Amino acid sequence: MDSFNAHIEASKGRYFDELCTLLRQPSIAAQGVGIEETALLVAQRLERAGARVQVFRMPGAAPVVYGSIGAGPRTLLIYDHYDVQPPEPLDLWHSPPFEPALRDGKLYARGVADNKGNLMLRIQAIESWLAATGDLPCRINFLIEGEEEIGSVNLEAFCHHHRDLLRADGCLWETGGVNALEQPTIMCGAKGICYVELVARGASYDLHSANATMVPNPAWRLTWALATLKAPDERVLIPGFYDRVRPPSAADMAALASIPLDDDALLADFGIPRFLGGMHGLERLKTHLFSPTCTICGMVAGYTGEGSKTVLPSEARAKIDFRLVPDMDPAEVVAALRRHLDDHGFDDIAILEHGHEKPGRSDPDSHVARAMATAIRQTYGQEPVVYPTMAGTGPVYPVCIEPGTPMTSGCGTGYQGTLIHAPDENIRLDDYWTAMRCMGAFIAAFAA
Amino acid sequence: MDSFNAHIEASKGRYFDELCTLLRQPSIAAQGVGIEETALLVAQRLERAGARVQVFRMPGAAPVVYGSIGAGPRTLLIYDHYDVQPPEPLDLWHSPPFEPALRDGKLYARGVADNKGNLMLRIQAIESWLAATGDLPCRINFLIEGEEEIGSVNLEAFCHHHRDLLRADGCLWETGGVNALEQPTIMCGAKGICYVELVARGASYDLHSANATMVPNPAWRLTWALATLKAPDERVLIPGFYDRVRPPSAADMAALASIPLDDDALLADFGIPRFLGGMHGLERLKTHLFSPTCTICGMVAGYTGEGSKTVLPSEARAKIDFRLVPDMDPAEVVAALRRHLDDHGFDDIAILEHGHEKPGRSDPDSHVARAMATAIRQTYGQEPVVYPTMAGTGPVYPVCIEPGTPMTSGCGTGYQGTLIHAPDENIRLDDYWTAMRCMGAFIAAFAA
Repeated sequence: MDSFNAHIEASKGRYFDELCTLLRQPSIAAQGVGIEETALLVAQRLERAGARVQVFRMPGAAPVVYGSIGAGPRTLLIYDHYDVQPPEPLDLWHSPPFEPALRDGKLYARGVADNKGNLMLRIQAIESWLAATGDLPCRINFLIEGEEEIGSVNLEAFCHHHRDLLRADGCLWETGGVNALEQPTIMCGAKGICYVELVARGASYDLHSANATMVPNPAWRLTWALATLKAPDERVLIPGFYDRVRPPSAADMAALASIPLDDDALLADFGIPRFLGGMHGLERLKTHLFSPTCTICGMVAGYTGEGSKTVLPSEARAKIDFRLVPDMDPAEVVAALRRHLDDHGFDDIAILEHGHEKPGRSDPDSHVARAMATAIRQTYGQEPVVYPTMAGTGPVYPVCIEPGTPMTSGCGTGYQGTLIHAPDENIRLDDYWTAMRCMGAFIAAFAA
Repeated sequence: MDSFNAHIEASKGRYFDELCTLLRQPSIAAQGVGIEETALLVAQRLERAGARVQVFRMPGAAPVVYGSIGAGPRTLLIYDHYDVQPPEPLDLWHSPPFEPALRDGKLYARGVADNKGNLMLRIQAIESWLAATGDLPCRINFLIEGEEEIGSVNLEAFCHHHRDLLRADGCLWETGGVNALEQPTIMCGAKGICYVELVARGASYDLHSANATMVPNPAWRLTWALATLKAPDERVLIPGFYDRVRPPSAADMAALASIPLDDDALLADFGIPRFLGGMHGLERLKTHLFSPTCTICGMVAGYTGEGSKTVLPSEARAKIDFRLVPDMDPAEVVAALRRHLDDHGFDDIAILEHGHEKPGRSDPDSHVARAMATAIRQTYGQEPVVYPTMAGTGPVYPVCIEPGTPMTSGCGTGYQGTLIHAPDENIRLDDYWTAMRCMGAFIAAFAA
């Protein structure tokens, strides 16, 4: 490992520049910006590392970049994505989102934490491994998609058509890093998601608000409809919503109990005095990992600029994500939402679907998860904290659960201040090199 | 009147150019754009017409332009405003809002209907009158403010400080034109308004929506709070809201009954199949003129761009206007709203005030209203339709009601397709010249 680490040390300047080149290229899946260009950059970088690369194109879908490198008795699948969240609101960034900026040891850019940093450091780790040792002790297959941030809308179909490409003894998931207490983490699952947009329409154009005496207001229609979805006590009111929620097992609860609590660090970071409903400690953690959610991610109607404008909007929209836990099914949730709206007299409100994913969990005692624990011990000099699942979402179900591949997170730059999906998204540059060294230790432990 | 009309005819090219110059100058009160420049343009135009002009400046307020011209036993006060609504949403305009465009006999520009057209044609009518006859048969005082579209926030104070400037035998209000049945109208009052913005706050920055299990979502808080304000049957639920609503008198109902119904024309224009609650005819008109409203004019939270973004917003905002009828009081409404929110557990939601105005009504049988009826008969060859009040709002209370000056609308370019406050705001250019001729007839009838 010494020559591996020495090669990283000697390559830092070039590796940093490569990361910045990738960050400078916008790749906003929600807005269809820069997807082709970024897929090409990633494919070229994999080829430079020595991988055999295939770029899969399906009609209307972002390219899937698949790279294969090395050989050995075991095969590791690495799942990453090259797309990023929209950078808005732009005025809250302290430097432009697609101009990487290093300040106080932190590198700021849209996508640096989610997921271009991890994607690049894993490729660079393999390059350094090859430079140091000549060959890999296992086969490593990269599955890199460009639609993760819009719910991996086409990845399930890809996985069904290319089962052979997914075959592996373990999967390294896109995420990894340390928790709010600076402890390295391992997570073995992800929530599902169902992202919809509700659209209410009124008059054919925005009217003078004096007409509100007689013309329906879609902003009110939407407000009333939304208020039927969730009660102020946070309980989702859609009939059947909780029916398929699998309660945590005894093993899950034991795993939870072993996780150090970081309530105070989280509260301070979020800038809130208490968690929802006054939850704390184990109860808060249990809810966070094992409960579904119904979240207004955005809403808009009428005039939203400065000051006042007396207008009766002709349209109102709300974007909602449902985070799902096993064994909820996104299609069932959308159907239940439609029925619920109809039953409450809101059949005038349209539902647009923006992607969905099934939840999935994997055994925390699998070979791949144990290999990550070994790598973390060696790299960080600490025991990893093992979470039964992430609170976040990803295509864990089609990539790992359905093919029966155990998965783990790890070898990533995550930390509590990363501002993922928000303005000033960043990583601590030291974490980048640490995660890269961890990747080498992980390759060794996985192949052993 | 022949030489007056001939002078208008001869001046059409210049008058049209002058109007376009005024329209090209943005004057967006809500955004503080171009206010000083527009006040100067208006003051200069009044001076060119022969008026003695004073420009009143109060700290933090848009200039009030006051012009006085002519002499005679009677004094007419004309109220207009030089500010306009914000032009957003810009992408729905077929030509840029501050580049006047003539298409199919219609002149498109922000403010052309509300209120720069009426303002300019009234000054131009006086100029043509003076050119044709040498002098005015009455004194005409212009009171032209720059904050009408943000609730005339400083005009009440101005009126209290300058009672002498308001003294008049009648007031011509900013509005005028024809209804959806193309009948010229007279309106003798205006609703009041109370415009507020509700602001809910959550975490100190936009979070990844996976945190929705534990972090309060201001978009939900705002939704739940809004849903307590008005029921789906349109009844406002704030205690005491209707207590001071003055029911229409027998005279009001008789006036209503004389107004031709234009339901079908309105429905077609608005593009809706029916009015709220299935109202129609006299009931619809009565509600329109004599009922208060509570309207969401705009709301915004989180991500509102294309596609999906999984974000937990840190802030949510809703702009609400309450249109008030006699004898409601804006200050009481805000106080009742605050109490209502607090009583429902929403003391975390802030109320920002964006201006308010008291409602006011004036006698439809006053000299000034009868003079307008005479002018309309002469100009349009039709009986005017007299509305006891507008559904719209303006500073009628401090300008007319408090000083005891009767008021009327008239001499304006209003028509059903004017898209007031909306993209593609426009007037029919023929209406501009008709309203200008009507202004001459009105001056004669008022002075007589």
